[in-house]
Amino acid sequence: MSSPAIILINPQLGENIGMCARAMFNCGLTDLRIVNPRDGWPSEKAVSASAGALENGVVATLYHSTAEAVADCTTILATTARPRDMVKEIFTPREAARKLRADTKSAILFGAERSGLVNEDIAIATGVITIPLNPGFTSLNIAQAVLLVSYEWFTAGDATAPAQLVTGESGIASAKEIAELVGRMETEMDAGGFFRSPELRPTLVRNLQSLFARTRMTSQEASTFHGIISALIGLRRK
Amino acid sequence: MSSPAIILINPQLGENIGMCARAMFNCGLTDLRIVNPRDGWPSEKAVSASAGALENGVVATLYHSTAEAVADCTTILATTARPRDMVKEIFTPREAARKLRADTKSAILFGAERSGLVNEDIAIATGVITIPLNPGFTSLNIAQAVLLVSYEWFTAGDATAPAQLVTGESGIASAKEIAELVGRMETEMDAGGFFRSPELRPTLVRNLQSLFARTRMTSQEASTFHGIISALIGLRRK
Repeated sequence: MSSPAIILINPQLGENIGMCARAMFNCGLTDLRIVNPRDGWPSEKAVSASAGALENGVVATLYHSTAEAVADCTTILATTARPRDMVKEIFTPREAARKLRADTKSAILFGAERSGLVNEDIAIATGVITIPLNPGFTSLNIAQAVLLVSYEWFTAGDATAPAQLVTGESGIASAKEIAELVGRMETEMDAGGFFRSPELRPTLVRNLQSLFARTRMTSQEASTFHGIISALIGLRRK
Repeated sequence: MSSPAIILINPQLGENIGMCARAMFNCGLTDLRIVNPRDGWPSEKAVSASAGALENGVVATLYHSTAEAVADCTTILATTARPRDMVKEIFTPREAARKLRADTKSAILFGAERSGLVNEDIAIATGVITIPLNPGFTSLNIAQAVLLVSYEWFTAGDATAPAQLVTGESGIASAKEIAELVGRMETEMDAGGFFRSPELRPTLVRNLQSLFARTRMTSQEASTFHGIISALIGLRRK
């Protein structure tokens, strides 16, 4: 499987082309195809706006027609909000990502900044991508559209690891360490006169245990807590 | 459930603030909080770059510190690639979206354009969002980071409700309550002679802040902790 081509049709500003290159490269895409850019190609403004993407990874190729640009592709998805009386299957970027990953060579079409894709370009597409957005404010710039579609492609390939707790060099405290910490707190609270109502003691200790357990503190943090307790009771001991 | 606040800490260019406002409003978010913007506020450049978002939906509020900006929030997620020796749970934007939707008031922190978030801001967070990107090219502009995180929040809207923290009658303690608890502990630890090496104080306080932030303790538990501190220092006071 090769990664999909991003095809910009009649883009206007070189700066926008550069920002599209940056966004796609953020997501590991490198095949950029440019059809009839208004301000010409190559473009210094594009290179500058790409923040290194056009110099270090993205390969940009110039084409004179959409048909030429998609010639080697089998799945071709047009990004547009409006299906314009054409019978096309509509995908969210997330659904599209799975489709794109299933094909050997695919392309995603993006229209000009203000006008979007014309009907002739949408007709070439095998399907349509519509990005779900706030219905009251759908104005998305072209680099942001490229980013969202590329991001979905990238994350679809990632057997995303579940949320992780980064603990540095110290491991998560064991249940024994937590029990010792809670036990010590109970002892010292007792000595400090905390349990004026003895019947509340079991509930309080259980709540404290529950709080520390769900915190998933590290051994280092448990040790810090012991130090804090020692400091707080310090003068009492002297 | 109210939608999360987007908090920009020390943003530089008004134009970038405007583009962040545009990106968040594309995804239905309207609560923008700006902490000490370098070029001042309000900003004409921001309004222009927001493409109507700041005039038609997004409410921007100025704050003088991160602590003030997050005071009413219970889930606070910091966007950063580097956890920097702090114990925090790391989420993808997609996992974060479910977490954010489970809370009544949450916030997402974004650092300055080039430097990102400082350790003190990350310490306030209850967790971290790291956006999965091409490891060879992770340079993402701030508006694009805001877009991806907001987009995941928006598209998670129809997903099944995630696991929730059952808190009983007491709500999750706000950032302000946590700050007060940490502040009191610092004061009492100081009085107890905890900070024998003054240069260790900022790290210790930050770690303590970080620990309590990720615990998501309830107001009731915070109050219990105040009682415990009082008991531990009891004889010192008498």
